[in-house]
Amino acid sequence: MGRLLFALTFFFLLSTLAFAGSWSAQNLESRKDDLYPEILRDEAVARLNELGKVSDAEAYLERTFMSPASVRAGNLIRGWMEDAGLRTWIDQMGNVHGRVDGINASSKAILIGSHLDTVVDAGIFDGSLGVVSAISALKVLNARGKLGNLLRPVEVIAFSDEEGVRFQSTFLGSAAVAGILPASALQFSDKSGVTVQGALKENSIQISEENLHNLKYDRDSVWGYVEVHIEQGPVLEWRGLPLGVVKGIAGQTRMKVTVRGSQGHAGTVPMSMRQDPMSAAAELIVLLESLCKRPEDFLSFDGHCKDSTVQSLSTSLVCTVGEISSWPSASNVIPGQVVFTVDIRAIDDMGREAVIYELSNRMYQICDRRSVSCIIERKHDAGAVMCDDELRRQLKFAADSALKRMSDNQFLDEVPVLMSGAGHDAMAISHLTKVGMIFVRCRGGVSHSPEEHVLDDDVWAAGLSVLAFLETHM
Amino acid sequence: MGRLLFALTFFFLLSTLAFAGSWSAQNLESRKDDLYPEILRDEAVARLNELGKVSDAEAYLERTFMSPASVRAGNLIRGWMEDAGLRTWIDQMGNVHGRVDGINASSKAILIGSHLDTVVDAGIFDGSLGVVSAISALKVLNARGKLGNLLRPVEVIAFSDEEGVRFQSTFLGSAAVAGILPASALQFSDKSGVTVQGALKENSIQISEENLHNLKYDRDSVWGYVEVHIEQGPVLEWRGLPLGVVKGIAGQTRMKVTVRGSQGHAGTVPMSMRQDPMSAAAELIVLLESLCKRPEDFLSFDGHCKDSTVQSLSTSLVCTVGEISSWPSASNVIPGQVVFTVDIRAIDDMGREAVIYELSNRMYQICDRRSVSCIIERKHDAGAVMCDDELRRQLKFAADSALKRMSDNQFLDEVPVLMSGAGHDAMAISHLTKVGMIFVRCRGGVSHSPEEHVLDDDVWAAGLSVLAFLETHM
Repeated sequence: MGRLLFALTFFFLLSTLAFAGSWSAQNLESRKDDLYPEILRDEAVARLNELGKVSDAEAYLERTFMSPASVRAGNLIRGWMEDAGLRTWIDQMGNVHGRVDGINASSKAILIGSHLDTVVDAGIFDGSLGVVSAISALKVLNARGKLGNLLRPVEVIAFSDEEGVRFQSTFLGSAAVAGILPASALQFSDKSGVTVQGALKENSIQISEENLHNLKYDRDSVWGYVEVHIEQGPVLEWRGLPLGVVKGIAGQTRMKVTVRGSQGHAGTVPMSMRQDPMSAAAELIVLLESLCKRPEDFLSFDGHCKDSTVQSLSTSLVCTVGEISSWPSASNVIPGQVVFTVDIRAIDDMGREAVIYELSNRMYQICDRRSVSCIIERKHDAGAVMCDDELRRQLKFAADSALKRMSDNQFLDEVPVLMSGAGHDAMAISHLTKVGMIFVRCRGGVSHSPEEHVLDDDVWAAGLSVLAFLETHM
Repeated sequence: MGRLLFALTFFFLLSTLAFAGSWSAQNLESRKDDLYPEILRDEAVARLNELGKVSDAEAYLERTFMSPASVRAGNLIRGWMEDAGLRTWIDQMGNVHGRVDGINASSKAILIGSHLDTVVDAGIFDGSLGVVSAISALKVLNARGKLGNLLRPVEVIAFSDEEGVRFQSTFLGSAAVAGILPASALQFSDKSGVTVQGALKENSIQISEENLHNLKYDRDSVWGYVEVHIEQGPVLEWRGLPLGVVKGIAGQTRMKVTVRGSQGHAGTVPMSMRQDPMSAAAELIVLLESLCKRPEDFLSFDGHCKDSTVQSLSTSLVCTVGEISSWPSASNVIPGQVVFTVDIRAIDDMGREAVIYELSNRMYQICDRRSVSCIIERKHDAGAVMCDDELRRQLKFAADSALKRMSDNQFLDEVPVLMSGAGHDAMAISHLTKVGMIFVRCRGGVSHSPEEHVLDDDVWAAGLSVLAFLETHM
């Protein structure tokens, strides 16, 4: 009777707290023994804080490719890998590896990774959480003497560059492992004129085109890639859930729209005689928002697109105008030109193309009607990356079971399947092997900011889900 | 019969050429004797070109308050005034005066003026045309021995500062004459830290608060003020007419609109969860344009505004967004803030207030609906200045008669009455006496640019209209 009352109370508490975004530590402590909070939560959080202090700047967090702080961070991570019983090395692109062979060293390996670099004035979870939670999960297995039971090798990789801050080129580390980094990337130079090759050389790492190729993993040597990462968006917090599983990483198109009209004096050109690129740009931006909020109202498919594409767009399409400027930019001058950026992302590549086609046509129509000229340039295109179905199911099972274990089987919701609108190392590694990702709730969806925050218990949930995933490979 | 054919042909030609924006020099030459083309056109154009070469910069035209080029320009103008038979002096704000007493030196004087300063990389007509055409008209009277017949004194003033480039404060010259320049203006300083007082002192002009007051003209000593100026807009060219008469100078409100939303990752925040200040700003700008194009559709007057106000707004209201910026301004970040300027001008001050009231209300509604915050700040307000009805009629008669004389009475259109959306010295002088203005067509409505251009025959028309005006005061 007492137990029933306790269970009912606990269930009520959990139902409430899941939406409040906080797990009841009090109740969880009672079952800590098999949930390893001292490793998966307390130590992991301490390590994230420690890593968050390893910075090239004094006042804020900044670690760029092969910077002094990045090298120190890599050595710190390497130490934690060894502490977890892993065999470690640092490769010629500065990636930090820790591997355990399991029962068969020649089986295809599970790679688990994320990145050790950061943006400028960064938060401490972006990248680091994926590295730390993987090491913590393996440390638990090591502590239980189970590393040798793994059916296949497991390798944690802390990639040296995902943010691309220093060389304006993302994925230097993971692209090298995936074998898609062009040799020319070694000659990319930073603001001081130091090349990628030079930055490595400063750290006594000799890299040539030849040994860059040697960094590429053999397809037949890897089973798949798993990445844990903060969501960097608000959906999990809004749903009141600590974890989500990623369906895929959205494809992206970046465009630059230049609207040119007739520059003039703000006081002397009657409204009816204006060819004002500012009003035109405003109408284009309103159109963009309407189309991306309700693509189903705009797209006329003529049988070209499937219903599933429209359905996918309705849930995944996001469009953003982040930059805008006018020329000559004086309050008393009708601009001669307005330029703005458009960022369009969707999980369905064909759908994204349909949106761009429809958008461009309607933009040109608006510009024609307004007698302004309109130049739409595509500056960047990246196809969507779909997570592997089987791997996604495994990760969902692992995340569900982690949350169930943390809630003493009282957690009845299923972890949601989300799209990733942001790019991740998994995008590069998808060229090598199947990929899967787990997202972790972050406060307010805020990232790339010192305000970035993950609850201690959500760090725990992340580590526990990696542990649960690895347990299915034993 | 031959004469009739000639007259018919001439009329046809004129009707065509008036719209083509060019007068037939060939036909006009035949009646040059009483139209003084050698003074009002050829010499005036030569003087405008000569003045256009008096610059502080080598590669472009720049004359700012009391700069070396401005002083040289002032002396050049003073010489032309003396050549026209005027008594000249330079006052303690650097304004250049040339006066003739007519038959009664103690009568109220007609002031005719414009400015001798320019913007940076200026055209040669803005300001200078008004000064040169007034001097040319008086030179014709002098050549005809008629200066003594003027019923009242006529004084040409070339004001030292209208553009306000050097001290970021317009009307230093004309405001001093009108007696509305605050004494504090003497301490305004330029980018090098030189004050207005210091700039005058460098040119051996001692000015104190006391003698600043002495520059003010006595209201009872002036009859009215006339200014000829390029239109700086496209209306006259569009109408195919060289001259227009100004009804008034529009009042102006400058506002700064700050829209704040929720900054986020362009890939991770679903459209439905966004509080995007960029889309909101775009909707606000589209609203602004719609309201200003068709104020009659938006304003609900409830008896507060007269029909004449709505009518006036429909023809004179102009609204401009010249500057816009986003923060943090990255193509992959939903902005946290977008700021833009709004410039609103209308000839009816109450109508302008009604527009601002309606606009602000609707803007706040849009921001509320979008869950973004919206701050509308009024940064600058200037009331409209109406030209004097009687003076406007005189100037219209003068302009009509000048065009009729140039077309041998074949010019049948009437010169149009326009609003001035740009500020002019007449705004400052309106605090002293009644004002009237004549606008001269400029190519493409372009001003504040080396592309600024006035046809030689339109310079002639300008001079001839001043002459015709003066002839009505004889």
